[in-house]
Amino acid sequence: MDLSGVHAPIPTPFTDDGHTIDLAGARRNAERWVSTGLRGLVVLGSNGEAPLVGDGEADQLVDVIREVVPRDRWLIVGVGRESTRATIAASRRAAAAGADAVLVRTPGFFKPHMSDRAFFHHFTAVADGSPVPVVVYNFTALTGVLLPVSVAADLSRHPNLIGMKESGSDLGYVSSLAEETAPGFQLLVGSAGTFFASLMCGAVGGILALACVVPDRCLTIYDLVRKGRLDEARTVQRQVASLARLVTRVHGVSGLKAALDLTGYTGGPPRLPLLPVEPAARAAIAAALVSCGEHPVRAQSGGARG
Amino acid sequence: MDLSGVHAPIPTPFTDDGHTIDLAGARRNAERWVSTGLRGLVVLGSNGEAPLVGDGEADQLVDVIREVVPRDRWLIVGVGRESTRATIAASRRAAAAGADAVLVRTPGFFKPHMSDRAFFHHFTAVADGSPVPVVVYNFTALTGVLLPVSVAADLSRHPNLIGMKESGSDLGYVSSLAEETAPGFQLLVGSAGTFFASLMCGAVGGILALACVVPDRCLTIYDLVRKGRLDEARTVQRQVASLARLVTRVHGVSGLKAALDLTGYTGGPPRLPLLPVEPAARAAIAAALVSCGEHPVRAQSGGARG
Amino acid sequence: MDLSGVHAPIPTPFTDDGHTIDLAGARRNAERWVSTGLRGLVVLGSNGEAPLVGDGEADQLVDVIREVVPRDRWLIVGVGRESTRATIAASRRAAAAGADAVLVRTPGFFKPHMSDRAFFHHFTAVADGSPVPVVVYNFTALTGVLLPVSVAADLSRHPNLIGMKESGSDLGYVSSLAEETAPGFQLLVGSAGTFFASLMCGAVGGILALACVVPDRCLTIYDLVRKGRLDEARTVQRQVASLARLVTRVHGVSGLKAALDLTGYTGGPPRLPLLPVEPAARAAIAAALVSCGEHPVRAQSGGARG
Amino acid sequence: MDLSGVHAPIPTPFTDDGHTIDLAGARRNAERWVSTGLRGLVVLGSNGEAPLVGDGEADQLVDVIREVVPRDRWLIVGVGRESTRATIAASRRAAAAGADAVLVRTPGFFKPHMSDRAFFHHFTAVADGSPVPVVVYNFTALTGVLLPVSVAADLSRHPNLIGMKESGSDLGYVSSLAEETAPGFQLLVGSAGTFFASLMCGAVGGILALACVVPDRCLTIYDLVRKGRLDEARTVQRQVASLARLVTRVHGVSGLKAALDLTGYTGGPPRLPLLPVEPAARAAIAAALVSCGEHPVRAQSGGARG
Repeated sequence: MDLSGVHAPIPTPFTDDGHTIDLAGARRNAERWVSTGLRGLVVLGSNGEAPLVGDGEADQLVDVIREVVPRDRWLIVGVGRESTRATIAASRRAAAAGADAVLVRTPGFFKPHMSDRAFFHHFTAVADGSPVPVVVYNFTALTGVLLPVSVAADLSRHPNLIGMKESGSDLGYVSSLAEETAPGFQLLVGSAGTFFASLMCGAVGGILALACVVPDRCLTIYDLVRKGRLDEARTVQRQVASLARLVTRVHGVSGLKAALDLTGYTGGPPRLPLLPVEPAARAAIAAALVSCGEHPVRAQSGGARG
Repeated sequence: MDLSGVHAPIPTPFTDDGHTIDLAGARRNAERWVSTGLRGLVVLGSNGEAPLVGDGEADQLVDVIREVVPRDRWLIVGVGRESTRATIAASRRAAAAGADAVLVRTPGFFKPHMSDRAFFHHFTAVADGSPVPVVVYNFTALTGVLLPVSVAADLSRHPNLIGMKESGSDLGYVSSLAEETAPGFQLLVGSAGTFFASLMCGAVGGILALACVVPDRCLTIYDLVRKGRLDEARTVQRQVASLARLVTRVHGVSGLKAALDLTGYTGGPPRLPLLPVEPAARAAIAAALVSCGEHPVRAQSGGARG
Repeated sequence: MDLSGVHAPIPTPFTDDGHTIDLAGARRNAERWVSTGLRGLVVLGSNGEAPLVGDGEADQLVDVIREVVPRDRWLIVGVGRESTRATIAASRRAAAAGADAVLVRTPGFFKPHMSDRAFFHHFTAVADGSPVPVVVYNFTALTGVLLPVSVAADLSRHPNLIGMKESGSDLGYVSSLAEETAPGFQLLVGSAGTFFASLMCGAVGGILALACVVPDRCLTIYDLVRKGRLDEARTVQRQVASLARLVTRVHGVSGLKAALDLTGYTGGPPRLPLLPVEPAARAAIAAALVSCGEHPVRAQSGGARG
Repeated sequence: MDLSGVHAPIPTPFTDDGHTIDLAGARRNAERWVSTGLRGLVVLGSNGEAPLVGDGEADQLVDVIREVVPRDRWLIVGVGRESTRATIAASRRAAAAGADAVLVRTPGFFKPHMSDRAFFHHFTAVADGSPVPVVVYNFTALTGVLLPVSVAADLSRHPNLIGMKESGSDLGYVSSLAEETAPGFQLLVGSAGTFFASLMCGAVGGILALACVVPDRCLTIYDLVRKGRLDEARTVQRQVASLARLVTRVHGVSGLKAALDLTGYTGGPPRLPLLPVEPAARAAIAAALVSCGEHPVRAQSGGARG
C-alpha cells in the first residue's frame, strides 16, 4: 500500500446545533476532494474531531465517505482510542466498512505511565488485531506524549504497521524516524508549514489540514519536489505558510472549518467544547486565502452558527 | 450536599484477561470501603480507568456500586468526556442510576484551543444539563491543561457546580481557588501527600487514591486536623507519604491496584495500554504498606495476570 | 546558625539611568528593614538582580549592608554562579565582607546536562570551599532545573550545607524535602502565597519578596503559626495573597521595586533587560497595598525613570 | 559581511584541573580548523562554556584565536550576558580585540518577564552599542525562552543586526524566521542533524558543534546543497546524524570535547559543574566517529582527567 502523495484529514461537518453529523455536507465535500489529485482522505483524525464523535455516528460517516472515495484512492480511518481493546474494535469496524487502512494515535491520557513498553505493547496488539494496515500517529501537541524514535523503529518491523504520521515541525525528530525505521516504513507529515522540508528529509507524503482547503497548492509542492524543481516548490511553500498556520496551530479545526466555509466547502461549527473562530480570525483567514490565490466565497453558513 | 471528609476514587477491577469488569470483586471492595468512615466513593474517575471503560460497562458498574453504597454516603460518578454533549449524556445516565453527584474533568484533547471561554461554556452547559450536582475536576498532569483560577471563580457561582477537585500539589493554586471561588463552593484535593497542608489552606476534604488502600489513615489525618491536633496529623501524613507517592505519581493506577491486591482487596491488572507493575515495584509497595502499619497479604492474584 | 523566621531578599536599587547602584538608597532601605523584626537580609538573590550586577558592584553593596545589619541579624549573600569555581570565589569574597552565610542557587544554564551527579559535585565543592555556611537554593521557574529530593537529601548531610530555600509553591516537593533531608537541615520557602502552608509542612521560615514591602505582615503570619493561632494566620495570609502575587510571579522584581517606591522605600527602575512596570500594573500594586492596610505614598521617584 | 557557509563554535580547552584555559591547546586547535574550508570560528558561545569563563580569561582566549584566524575568515565572539549593559561592554571588548562580529544570546534568567518589549529593547540597545555587527542567538533548550518570530522580524531591520543563529531543530520556526525577517538578514542554524533541511528552508549556513569534529563532512553537506546534488547531501547528512546527536543533545559540550580528544584535537575536561562523559559514552562517540569515516586516535588526555 503506497501512501506517498498528499492526503486530506477531513473535518466532520455538523448541523448548526452540533447535534448530528451533516452527512450530506460531508458527501459533497468528499466528492469535491476526490475530483483533485489527492492520494487519499483521512476520516476521523483529530481534524475530524474524532474524540467528539460517537461510535455510531462514526460508522455512518465512514459509510458515506466510502461510497464517494473511488478504489484508486485511499480511505484511511482514524480509530485511536485510549484503550487498546477499544482501538482494536474500532479498527475492525472501520475495516468492515471498507477502510483501506487505519490511523492510530498514541494513547496519552495516562501520560506519566506511557512507557516504551506500554507504547510497544499497544501498537503491537492493535497491529495484530486490525484486519487492515495500521498507520502509527504521533501528535505531541495534542496528546502530550512523544513516541520515542527507538520504539517507532521497533514497531516499524511489524508487517501490519506500514507507516507513521508525525504532526510536529521538529525535523530532527522526522529525520531520526526516517533514518531509524525499517526500509519501506512510510513516513507522512502533518505540518504543512514544513511539508517541503519534510519531503527533503525522507517523508513520502503528507496528511495536511491545508490540503482540505487548497489541495492543489499542496499537490503542487509535492510534484515540484518530485521533479527536483525545489526553488519553485519553496516559493509555493512560502505562499501557503500563513494560511497553514491559521488552520492548524493558531485556530485548529475551528479555523480549518472557517476556511472551508470561505472556499465553498461545508465547514460549519465545531462541536463543543470547541468554539467557532471569532470574526477577526475569520477575516485573517480570508486574507490568507487571497494570498494563496483563492477568492473567498460569501460564507452564509459560517461559524457564527456555533 | 456536604462533600467534606475523605472519599475514595475506586479502581475498576477487571477479570484477568482485561476483557470484562469483575463486578463481584467491585462489589466486595465497595462493601469493605463503606464499612469504614469514608464519606463517599467516586466511581470511574481517572483511578477508575474511565477512559478505558465503555459506556455499557460503566453503567453496569455504577448499578453494582449503588446497591452497596448506603444513602448516608455519597456516590459520585466520573462522567467527563471530551465532548460537552457526551458529558451531559453521561451525567444523565449516572443520575438515572442513582449518582448523588458527578465529577467532570476538564476536556483536554484540543489543548491549544481550550480557552477560558471554552472551559466556561463547557462547564456551564454541563451544569445546566446535569440532573445532579457537578464537581469540576482539574488534573493537569493527565489532561495537560489547567483550569484558570479566574474561570473557576466564575463557574463557582453556578448553583449546580458545587465544588472542585484539584489533583496537583501546587498549594499556591489550591489557595488561590480557596480565596477566589464563591463561599460554599467546596474544594477537594487529590494529592494525598499534601492532604494535611491542603486542609490547612481551605480544602474541605479529599478524593484520595490512598484512601482506597488505607482509608483509616486518611480519615485519621482528616479528624486530627479538625480537632486541631496538627502535630499528630502531620506525623500520620509523614507515615503515609511514601505509599501515597507509589500509588499515584510513581506507578499510577497500576500501583494502586497492586496495593489493593496486597491489602486483600480485589485489585488485579489494569487494562491495556496500562501495564501491571513489575515485581520490584510491587515489593516497594509492600514495604511502604508495612511502614503504614499494614501487613500485606499474599497476593496470589496479582499483577502477573495482566 | 538558626535560620528560622522571616528574611527579606532585598532588591538592589539603581540610579535612574541604571548605571550604578544607589548605595545611599540601599543603606536607607536596610536601616528601615533592620528596625523591624526580620531575622535577616538576603543580598544579591534573584530579587537583588544578581545576574545583572558585576562583582565589583556586588562587593560594594555587601559592604554597605553589612555596616547596617547588626550582629544579631543574619546577612546572607547570594553568590550562585554558573561555574563551580566562580561560586566558590564569590563565597570567599562574601565571607571576607562579613556575610554570615551564602545562598547558592542551582546552576541551570546547561540544563540537559545537570545530572544528579553534577548537582551533587557542585554543591559539595562549594560547601567544601566556602568559609561560611551555605544555603542551597532551588528556583525552578527561573533556572529551569529542579534539584531532585534525593540529591537534596544527600547534600543535607554535609556539615556546611545548613539549609535550603525553595521558591516554588509545590508543597509536595516542600513536604518531601522536609521528610527526606537530615534532621537539623533548615527549610526556607520563597513563595509568600504558600508561607502559611509551608510552615505547617516543616519549613522553619521564609525568604519572602513580600517581606521587603510589608515585613510586619509576614512576621505576623510567622508568629501566629508559632503560637498555634492558625485561623488568624490564615486570615492574614489571605489579605496579602494578591500583593504577594503581584510582586513575584506577575511582575517580578519590577513589581517589587514599584511596591517599594509606593511604601517609601527606594525602589527605582530595574536594570535592562528588565523593564519597569507599566502604570496600570503600578495602580494594581497600589490597590493591593491598600488591601493589606498600607497607605501608598506618592512615588515621585518611580519606575517611569527606567 | 557574508555569513554563509559553515562555522565552528569552538570549545574552550582547560588544563586538567580546570583552573586555567589551555591557551596553547586552543591555538593548536584553531590552526587546524583554519586549515579547513570553515568560513569562521565562533569563540565563547555555549559550546565554549562561556558562562563558566571569566572576563579576563575570555579576553586572553580571543587574543590567541585572533592571531590564528586569517582576515579572510570570520572571528565571531559570543558576548551574551544577562544584563544589557554587560553585553554591550563585552561586545566592545571583543571588538577591540579584533572580533569581526559578536553573537548575543537571548537573556533568559528572568524568564517570566522576558516580554517582547524586553527582547526588543535589549537587542536594540546592544546593536546600538556594539562597534561590530551583531548576530542574534536563540537557544531555547538552554535559555528556556524563545525569541518570537515577530520580534525577530522587527529586529532584522536594525542595520547592525545582521543575522540570527537558531539552535533548535523546529523547522517551522526556522522557516517562519526565513519568511518574516528582512531581506539580507542571514539565518544560521546550530542543529547539525537538520543542517541539510535548514539549508533547504532558507538558512545560509550553520554554526555547528559537529563542524569542530568533522569540519569536512559539514562542508560537504553545504557544498552539495549549493550544487543541487541533494541526494548526495542527504546521504552525508545521514552518516553524521548519530555523531551529531552525541556531541550536542545527548552529551553536550562534554561529548564534544571527548570527540575532539578522539580526533587529535585538544578537548580535555569541561569545567564544573559540567562533568566529563563516562567511558561508555566515550566508546559510543568513538563508534560514531568510525561511522563518519574517522579513525579515532588514542585519547590519553581524555575526560578521565576531569
